[in-house]
Amino acid sequence: MILFAGVDAGGTTTRAALHTADGTRLGYGTAGPGNPAAHGVAAAGAAIEQALRRALGGRDPSRVAASVAGVAGADDGFAAVLARVWAACGLASPPRLVSDVDVAYASGTPSPSGTLLLAGTGAAAARFSGRVVAGVADGLGWLLGDEGGGFWIGREGVRAAVRALDRGLPGGPLIELVSAHFGATGEPRRRADRIVRLAQADRMLVAAASPLVSEAAMAGDARAGGIVGQAARRLVATVDRLPGDGPTVLAGGVLTADGPVRAAVMRLLAGRDVVTARDGAAGASWLAALDRRGVLGAHPRFTAGR
Amino acid sequence: MILFAGVDAGGTTTRAALHTADGTRLGYGTAGPGNPAAHGVAAAGAAIEQALRRALGGRDPSRVAASVAGVAGADDGFAAVLARVWAACGLASPPRLVSDVDVAYASGTPSPSGTLLLAGTGAAAARFSGRVVAGVADGLGWLLGDEGGGFWIGREGVRAAVRALDRGLPGGPLIELVSAHFGATGEPRRRADRIVRLAQADRMLVAAASPLVSEAAMAGDARAGGIVGQAARRLVATVDRLPGDGPTVLAGGVLTADGPVRAAVMRLLAGRDVVTARDGAAGASWLAALDRRGVLGAHPRFTAGR
Repeated sequence: MILFAGVDAGGTTTRAALHTADGTRLGYGTAGPGNPAAHGVAAAGAAIEQALRRALGGRDPSRVAASVAGVAGADDGFAAVLARVWAACGLASPPRLVSDVDVAYASGTPSPSGTLLLAGTGAAAARFSGRVVAGVADGLGWLLGDEGGGFWIGREGVRAAVRALDRGLPGGPLIELVSAHFGATGEPRRRADRIVRLAQADRMLVAAASPLVSEAAMAGDARAGGIVGQAARRLVATVDRLPGDGPTVLAGGVLTADGPVRAAVMRLLAGRDVVTARDGAAGASWLAALDRRGVLGAHPRFTAGR
Repeated sequence: MILFAGVDAGGTTTRAALHTADGTRLGYGTAGPGNPAAHGVAAAGAAIEQALRRALGGRDPSRVAASVAGVAGADDGFAAVLARVWAACGLASPPRLVSDVDVAYASGTPSPSGTLLLAGTGAAAARFSGRVVAGVADGLGWLLGDEGGGFWIGREGVRAAVRALDRGLPGGPLIELVSAHFGATGEPRRRADRIVRLAQADRMLVAAASPLVSEAAMAGDARAGGIVGQAARRLVATVDRLPGDGPTVLAGGVLTADGPVRAAVMRLLAGRDVVTARDGAAGASWLAALDRRGVLGAHPRFTAGR
């Protein structure tokens, strides 16, 4: 029995999966952040090794016929790090190194052509043709782009709250949720100053406000509802800059979690072939099987787990 | 002959001035950044001491009858630091500690009531009544506010350039100036990626792009012209949230330097009593004279220098 291994190493979690050729999942493991650009090559390599060992469990690693690692923020040098990790784990050959975008797309569809719309903390779209990225839109970072992503939504929500506090405008769910998130109490200008100080000191606090915008929108907050609508329109505008055949795969926490942003994007994409990304490690494992066998068909089984 | 000393300690430069009671300037000195919140208490104290010693020159410090220090980012504890500096320089009594906003306003007008509109790297308005700040608008920092200030203008300019590069839109002066500022060459997406990486790593590079937006606007770039108009409208909206009698004082590099932003703000404020801030150290020196004598009249002489 030959096996296939897939890894999806992201900025928050690293996931690894082990499958048989027919798509039966035999093992699964997770570990901490595996993005070498954000967390360093050594830490990323260690997280990937940990997830991979957990996925292998007690199975014979020499049975792994092919593997694919999708790593966010990897450069060419990281392939050598992965080769050492794979050898240390007893696998016969190193993985094919692809990006997190490749495995996210592969987790959603077996189609060689289509478009990925990814909105986690950041936001980007990628056009695939023959399973290779043929074009990218946005992904321009938290300061200047990533329009409609988690950081963008959080920043717009925090900004709206701070402006309302500074201007003495009426309160509401968004202002209350954002104030509580930053531990801001007292008179409005004092609350605004505290939020500004903490937000500037720790950008992740701003990204973490993204779910509060969704929560406030569901509670009927008009400002939050406006931000949700803007985010959805910007995300769809980004994917619309990469037209072509095949499905649109929605990936990333903002678009895969049930909530008002996903719902608004689904409404805007109504009538198109839209699928939701599944587990990235399963997508990577399926790509590994595809590399080795050159056939399709087992995709739904590979990605059925989790 | 009694003397008055004034200090304006900002985030880039510290200035000190020495005046006679009739407003004749006898000495002037500058030094590095004097903002204790941004640069540390020790460095700020040292810069202020250096500027003050230069302003005193060889004159007898015991003749200084009163002094005022306007310091950006000072808390109450900084008064003790200034008291030690003043004693080390031989002055008989410590300065009255005020904010950079107070001395900027005082440098522009002797009127006890009026409004300051300040746009340097940041942007804020302050309402003065009886020479005391009675209200503040914006000043909400680079991430969430400071609308129309230098960082805001720079970020909008860089964002517009990056978006145009990402979307394959036609070039123009703004895109060329921003690309050169970041040393970005080659095909558009590659240029965009380099600009994003450097801008996220060093916010000051973004603020430094503000004059490029003005330059591009003057060269007829429509995107840059739109940003300039937006900046001016936002600045005027900020000051309009603090209505009241008295003049409007324009301060900070964006509003005191000749250029399209200042010109657009002047057009929007046409028909109002608008004055431009002069040297902040002279404003502080004039406040010191006012503290001691309780009379007005010499303001134009105090602020005539430089």
